[in-house]
Amino acid sequence: MPAAFDFLVTAADGAARTGVIRTPRGVVRTPAFMPVGTAATVKAMLPESVAATGADILLGNTYHLMLRPGADRVARLGGLHRFMNWPRPILTDSGGFQVMSLAALRQIDETGVRFRSHIDGSAHHLTPERSVEVQALLGADIAMAFDECTPFPADEATAAASMRLSMRWAERSRAAFGDPPGRALFGIQQGSVFRDLRAESAARLREIGFHGYAVGGLAVGEGQERMFEVLDYAPGMLPEDKPRYLMGVGKPDDILGAVMRGIDMMDCVLPTRSGRTGQAFTRRGTVNLRNARHADDPRPLDEDCGCPACRHYSRAYLHHVVRAGEMIAGMLLTWHNLHYYQDLMADLRAAIAAGRLQAFAAEFHARRAAGDIEPL
Amino acid sequence: MPAAFDFLVTAADGAARTGVIRTPRGVVRTPAFMPVGTAATVKAMLPESVAATGADILLGNTYHLMLRPGADRVARLGGLHRFMNWPRPILTDSGGFQVMSLAALRQIDETGVRFRSHIDGSAHHLTPERSVEVQALLGADIAMAFDECTPFPADEATAAASMRLSMRWAERSRAAFGDPPGRALFGIQQGSVFRDLRAESAARLREIGFHGYAVGGLAVGEGQERMFEVLDYAPGMLPEDKPRYLMGVGKPDDILGAVMRGIDMMDCVLPTRSGRTGQAFTRRGTVNLRNARHADDPRPLDEDCGCPACRHYSRAYLHHVVRAGEMIAGMLLTWHNLHYYQDLMADLRAAIAAGRLQAFAAEFHARRAAGDIEPL
Repeated sequence: MPAAFDFLVTAADGAARTGVIRTPRGVVRTPAFMPVGTAATVKAMLPESVAATGADILLGNTYHLMLRPGADRVARLGGLHRFMNWPRPILTDSGGFQVMSLAALRQIDETGVRFRSHIDGSAHHLTPERSVEVQALLGADIAMAFDECTPFPADEATAAASMRLSMRWAERSRAAFGDPPGRALFGIQQGSVFRDLRAESAARLREIGFHGYAVGGLAVGEGQERMFEVLDYAPGMLPEDKPRYLMGVGKPDDILGAVMRGIDMMDCVLPTRSGRTGQAFTRRGTVNLRNARHADDPRPLDEDCGCPACRHYSRAYLHHVVRAGEMIAGMLLTWHNLHYYQDLMADLRAAIAAGRLQAFAAEFHARRAAGDIEPL
Repeated sequence: MPAAFDFLVTAADGAARTGVIRTPRGVVRTPAFMPVGTAATVKAMLPESVAATGADILLGNTYHLMLRPGADRVARLGGLHRFMNWPRPILTDSGGFQVMSLAALRQIDETGVRFRSHIDGSAHHLTPERSVEVQALLGADIAMAFDECTPFPADEATAAASMRLSMRWAERSRAAFGDPPGRALFGIQQGSVFRDLRAESAARLREIGFHGYAVGGLAVGEGQERMFEVLDYAPGMLPEDKPRYLMGVGKPDDILGAVMRGIDMMDCVLPTRSGRTGQAFTRRGTVNLRNARHADDPRPLDEDCGCPACRHYSRAYLHHVVRAGEMIAGMLLTWHNLHYYQDLMADLRAAIAAGRLQAFAAEFHARRAAGDIEPL
């Protein structure tokens, strides 16, 4: 295993690529889906079970962790990997998105964001420098530059001003990060749905120079069609030899579409959150286990799935424990959803390597069209 | 494995015994602690994890299961073992205790108990015959006779009337049960804290004849001292060659005291319920992980414990996830508590087999007296 961080593309199919990110804590096979471990836990899962689904890397949320249990405390206890018993790679976000959506009394200016904790009301000042410092205290293998996620919709002037603030913050993040061996910092492209702004942002990030690049400001309410329009050009503006990370995406068909447009990494709370509300993602579409039609159904949730929920239980059982509000419902359905997402990523990697991604996409859509789909 | 149900005492130490209950679904090493799987799940646990703690047998609650998902439905789906993915022995209670503590509009008469479901308000009539039928539909390896758990305190006349009703119901339960191969029915001794009534109840149960005998009507608020007073004589009134089951007990020191008085089986929600509220049982006493003193503590919860919570996590982490309300807190602490309870049972069995139960009890109490005890 190298002490350095690097990325190797091993095959391409159209705009899609498959490869390997190598880090001192292990490899990440791309395209990769990162389960979200917000508060030092992937909700309802033990970390060894997350690994058993095929996940190579987790995402941790800087905003949550800096407030509770606190980054300095995590550092004193040996870092986030040891704290949460996940020895593999971890990517942390910058806190920029959560601070704007969760914190109280937030005030943004050139320096950063002042806010009060949504947990205990304590005052904080999150800046590019502090964000990078917190991510280092947590021990992130991949840290993210501090940015403002431009809200949608935004007019072009607003989007431009927001993007340029993020680029100034990107430069400060890069300077604060330095060159720690084996750790990576990713820049984040902004520019909303404006192609010229996406180009300007990408050019600026390339000048600064990062270990990887995220497409930010998507999956914020613009819808799949507009998101794909941006993904038709935005990833291609970023360096081909570095990982490209689409933040906060998404549903299985979003993931397929993003990978086909050149995205290498994604994260989303959808499989875990849905698992706790009785929603399952399957090869045949989404299934709502709360629905009474499952009450007497002896069949597994997904006959083609090898997860514990599908191998050992009937739909009738899953329905029962969802209705009864039992913790095992969230445990089994989260496991299933994460397992399905990782199966999808493995299938995508295999299809790209075999040069049959178009055929895989056609099968993917046909299977869902024929299935028992219950839209979320 | 025999097709029949039997019990073999392999060693005794004072009043305590150790042995094996053999059933077609596997052996139960005694003294045995049965985790409670009320609604077809041991809360916060996967069944393979329950087995990994060393549990040989689970308890299922007839009242809950008959209301949701329904005994006929469970039977159609192949029985409770298959439904909940627990292939080992299951004991079901009779529903008598829960119907009196949970159901709405309950009316007791000679026939049984009429009540309305606390879930959907539906009307039900639970009788000795129906209780035995429901337990057969669920597929219980050990079924319990339908009884009234005499409330505490009760005067002697009330306790006598209640006990005699339970004895008439015990006879009806035994008649309804028949002689299904490999399945067992246990009678339940009542009589509150009155020795003469306990003797009368035991004599009547022996006349009827059961595969095992429970000491009922304890752990209902009488306190440990009074409970032990009853246990000083009540188990000895029951057949020596059959398992003796103390229902709803208890804390670790209750278990030790009960085993020393001749009890072979116990069940209690305490380890699972406490695990979901941040309470842990350890060799050194009980620990409240919510307490701020654990926030920076890198030590494991219990250095002598081999469970995942103790092997992979610090007290600081457990404190964090308890405070953050994360599901993993309940998952890890339930696992720990069940693991500790099963370790205790294994230690008790070994101590009895070695004829050193008195020494074990002295060590048990000394370790707790020296430890960081935080009473529940």
